[in-house]
Amino acid sequence: MEKFMEVGATVIQSVRLDEEKDALIILDQTLLPNEKRFLEIKKMEDLWEAIHSLRVRGAPAIGIAAGYGAYLGIKDSAATTFADLYEEFKKVRDYLGSSRPTAVNLFWALDRMEARLKEEADQSVESIKDALKSEAEKIRMEDEQVCEAIGNYALSLLEPGWGILTHCNAGTIATAKYGTALAPIYLGQAEGYDFKVYADETRPLLQGARLTAWELKEAGVDVTLICDNMASIVMKEGRIQAVLVGCDRVAANGDAANKIGTSGVAIMAKHYQIPFYVCAPLSTIDMTCSAGEKIHIELRSEEEITSKWYEKPMAPAGVKAYNPCFDVTDHELITAIITEKGIAYPPYHESLSTMFNK
Amino acid sequence: MEKFMEVGATVIQSVRLDEEKDALIILDQTLLPNEKRFLEIKKMEDLWEAIHSLRVRGAPAIGIAAGYGAYLGIKDSAATTFADLYEEFKKVRDYLGSSRPTAVNLFWALDRMEARLKEEADQSVESIKDALKSEAEKIRMEDEQVCEAIGNYALSLLEPGWGILTHCNAGTIATAKYGTALAPIYLGQAEGYDFKVYADETRPLLQGARLTAWELKEAGVDVTLICDNMASIVMKEGRIQAVLVGCDRVAANGDAANKIGTSGVAIMAKHYQIPFYVCAPLSTIDMTCSAGEKIHIELRSEEEITSKWYEKPMAPAGVKAYNPCFDVTDHELITAIITEKGIAYPPYHESLSTMFNK
Repeated sequence: MEKFMEVGATVIQSVRLDEEKDALIILDQTLLPNEKRFLEIKKMEDLWEAIHSLRVRGAPAIGIAAGYGAYLGIKDSAATTFADLYEEFKKVRDYLGSSRPTAVNLFWALDRMEARLKEEADQSVESIKDALKSEAEKIRMEDEQVCEAIGNYALSLLEPGWGILTHCNAGTIATAKYGTALAPIYLGQAEGYDFKVYADETRPLLQGARLTAWELKEAGVDVTLICDNMASIVMKEGRIQAVLVGCDRVAANGDAANKIGTSGVAIMAKHYQIPFYVCAPLSTIDMTCSAGEKIHIELRSEEEITSKWYEKPMAPAGVKAYNPCFDVTDHELITAIITEKGIAYPPYHESLSTMFNK
Repeated sequence: MEKFMEVGATVIQSVRLDEEKDALIILDQTLLPNEKRFLEIKKMEDLWEAIHSLRVRGAPAIGIAAGYGAYLGIKDSAATTFADLYEEFKKVRDYLGSSRPTAVNLFWALDRMEARLKEEADQSVESIKDALKSEAEKIRMEDEQVCEAIGNYALSLLEPGWGILTHCNAGTIATAKYGTALAPIYLGQAEGYDFKVYADETRPLLQGARLTAWELKEAGVDVTLICDNMASIVMKEGRIQAVLVGCDRVAANGDAANKIGTSGVAIMAKHYQIPFYVCAPLSTIDMTCSAGEKIHIELRSEEEITSKWYEKPMAPAGVKAYNPCFDVTDHELITAIITEKGIAYPPYHESLSTMFNK
């Protein structure tokens, strides 16, 4: 772990436990990119509000916050028996679960904390509390290790000095640390790779501008913001040697659902013969989903396109807008899928299967 | 001309002379898309301000405004000799020319008005004034005819009910009427073609959202606004049967410079096997420019990406941004180039040449 801590010295951690302060330290992502403020959270109500108001965002980061939250919720309990402590835990669990009912990782983490609590049923209350703290820490560390592993595999595909294009935010602030697509950037940065990163702003929610550009700049990475429609010109001008993106879900055939616009970037990368890499923790690979056309694409509000962020609406009143949140990148456009267990190359149905057997 | 006027009944004209009111009627494009207001301009100072403040924009529309402006500037002159009238004209010419010194069409139109004035040197002052009015009207009509011709040629390539993707604004408000890429939409609309138009919002200046979506909606066309990064998904979903774009400059080999993002749309269209058409008046085709790499790409301010239009900046302070205004679409990606003299197919070096001999 030593090298690990050193490497990441400048990399923002968006959720962590501060034992001295006895508080959860959370980066308030709603203030980005204009203000970097960490919240010291000691009360359940404040954590509930932080998750509910998207101050903490990104599936892994939400899971980590929930794990720590379950511990914080019972650590000062006066219960003297397992039964009493469990009753208190269930209240904490239900309360935190109500903060963002659509966040799958929230429930995944709370379920995992509950399972650990039950495993420790025959222990003293104090040692159960210690076990929960250790379980929360484990959730965070495991995510950090997944990200580091993806980062090291991805880094093995890159050369110093390369220009890297990324889309949306698959970065450190969405995870325990490092992120997925941005992990090789941070790990390479520490080894003097001197990457030039181009960040698509990623309309309509601008995660590339608000989050990716921000976290890379904070870490001292050479980052340049572009509009989504500039991906073609930066590729044509020879500024890009690889594209790295995260993903929300990968099908068994390698089709990958990710933020809207990803499939267009992949098509352009293929046209310019630039490798296109998807960074995917095994948790996002769904071998029960045979192909991308089975992945449901969420449609979001027209207002996100026509007026969100603006001083006044930038489209005529009442005009129709189409706002799909994700798109599916065809597996034929993907050079490799990088997991924490290794790099999968086509044909993906075979190579992805082997990742689960490692 | 009868059919022509009828067809365009609902199509906005952004610059025209109103003889009854004795005024130039100009659509104030700076108020779009939130307000549709026409200015009645009678004074040179007001026209100067309208051009300077981009209330009238689009190269052809600026030329038309300047032509009418030169006439308005001398029509009430008390001069009794050609020499005196010419002195007054030169003041008007220099004054209007100072409103937007980088607009090529402004000077093109003023030069043309001056040439006409000199041709009429042996006529009476009153008939010179009439000649200038007629020359200004001719500038407008010629542009309208170019747009109509492009529109009819383009329409011959389209089928009723098709979905059409367009990028930026190559529409009626940038020209005398109809526009270039949007001309077939308006002409088809009048014949019941029932197109479904998808307009890329076109970051960072949002001409697609502010202008294209606005003018099509005004004319009752079925238009849907999308973010630039959604072009791939709407093509993949089968919503698009053709792409139509305008252009700023076409090289002799068919390479076409147009608003940033156009080349990416062309690459995606090729990937999905959708025809990609460039609508180009002969005035934009530069046979002395052998290929696209000779076209200079203007870089604009970082602020247009990081903070323009927004309530507060959407990118971290001090982050680098790269903001090329145009890109060049390789001729191999272009299905056809549509001019007012006909449709040019590859190889363009030959087919474009023949357009100039018609």
